[in-house]
Amino acid sequence: MQKKKEIKILRNNNPIGIFDSGFGGLTVMSAINKALPSESLIYFGDTAHVPYGAKSQNAIIKFSKDITSFLISNKVKLIVVACNTASALALPVLEKTLKVPVIGVIAPGARAAVDASKKLRIGIIGTEGTIGSKSYPKAIKKLAKAKTYQQSCPLFVPLVEEGLTDGEITDSVVKKYIKPLLAKNIDTLVLGCTHYPLLRKILEKNLEKNIVLVDSAKSTVLEVKRILEQKSLLASKSGKKYLKFYVSDNPEKFKKIGKRFFSKNITDVKKINLTN
Amino acid sequence: MQKKKEIKILRNNNPIGIFDSGFGGLTVMSAINKALPSESLIYFGDTAHVPYGAKSQNAIIKFSKDITSFLISNKVKLIVVACNTASALALPVLEKTLKVPVIGVIAPGARAAVDASKKLRIGIIGTEGTIGSKSYPKAIKKLAKAKTYQQSCPLFVPLVEEGLTDGEITDSVVKKYIKPLLAKNIDTLVLGCTHYPLLRKILEKNLEKNIVLVDSAKSTVLEVKRILEQKSLLASKSGKKYLKFYVSDNPEKFKKIGKRFFSKNITDVKKINLTN
Repeated sequence: MQKKKEIKILRNNNPIGIFDSGFGGLTVMSAINKALPSESLIYFGDTAHVPYGAKSQNAIIKFSKDITSFLISNKVKLIVVACNTASALALPVLEKTLKVPVIGVIAPGARAAVDASKKLRIGIIGTEGTIGSKSYPKAIKKLAKAKTYQQSCPLFVPLVEEGLTDGEITDSVVKKYIKPLLAKNIDTLVLGCTHYPLLRKILEKNLEKNIVLVDSAKSTVLEVKRILEQKSLLASKSGKKYLKFYVSDNPEKFKKIGKRFFSKNITDVKKINLTN
Repeated sequence: MQKKKEIKILRNNNPIGIFDSGFGGLTVMSAINKALPSESLIYFGDTAHVPYGAKSQNAIIKFSKDITSFLISNKVKLIVVACNTASALALPVLEKTLKVPVIGVIAPGARAAVDASKKLRIGIIGTEGTIGSKSYPKAIKKLAKAKTYQQSCPLFVPLVEEGLTDGEITDSVVKKYIKPLLAKNIDTLVLGCTHYPLLRKILEKNLEKNIVLVDSAKSTVLEVKRILEQKSLLASKSGKKYLKFYVSDNPEKFKKIGKRFFSKNITDVKKINLTN
């Protein structure tokens, strides 16, 4: 292994890399952009392989390795895995193999859930992959003696990607998925997928009022900030800041749909063929 | 270009190659297997990239080229593109570049629809990619002066893949998609996606009785048979026949879910990393 040189850099204007299977991670990127406005950000959406939710761990690890190699070649100083499925299934491997700090969304989400929950009865919704990995229950139980109840919601991503964030169909899908969790008397619900914040309103309509909804974006940003400070990696305020967007398929569609997730227009998106 | 030798072979025991984005094409493979029981069949399900429905034409062409190269390396004598999206977006390129006959599901489906329709008012449902390509209306209008009405149904594939082929949610999704087609007074409905035959019952429940449902599988088989006969490519009855299954991800899941589509158990599935 190459020996790292201990050079203390007080400011580092290299970009932060962020990736997801598609659009969902833009909600995390948007939060980072607001909280850390001096930071340059590079986003990669793996739209050739989207969705990750029902694919195998081997496949998710392979996709994640290819994407992070691309981000590293763009000199990122830190990587945010802004996808719950990839955080659940690939983060341990990335942490071992990459030389920059890697932050997933699950540990910060678990932290936020434990902080929000009074009765420590926590529901978690996510993709098949995330739920199957039991990553949230494990992360939560490291922090507190909590009861956790999981439910995979494989139709939520297709619904959001089709723009069906309200209406009769989505309402009946939400009711179906939420019912077993309500029966468990949860007081907190973790939105364990970066698509789900777009379903917040219809979820709130179907939940009892005392149930707190937790999404990882905010707490992930806090973790990013903490690590940048700790490692003296924050960008200088006077530096030239940029936002770049890359995808593995369909840049035009990404521009069009992405703005709903990013909360502002996305102008320049490049398509990249990863080595695999 | 290499010059083809004109050798007349009366029987050819090489396999037929069949591919799809995932499980859907197994409905076509099952029909071929029943109708042509002496033929060896090789199936490729591109489960690393599934679903194809909302991906770009460039991506679909690339995936299709990689898969057909693999099938050709397995000495297939004919290729069936058992996926409507790939038939709609990649077939013309494959026909130009491959040296074996290539059969898509759209022309046979259009033929079947025209044969079935009395009033020549034909509805077509399919993925975003298939509907956007207008392949069915074009193919139908080559055969008859028909009125065609299209509707993309992006939630149908996720519903089928989750096993939700009946029940309240699927019923309301079906109603939503079918409504504008019913208003057009159609007498025939083309199931323009190989997943949709699994929704036949719930579709029939929601359609008026006089509307005929058409799926491409049967007429695709007839076309396969016709080409094999015409080109003297039929297998000999005494030959050793086999069925092989390959996927780009998750062979275990393919075995489990695939049997619903193939109508019998699938025992041996191999995972293949295509060059891309």
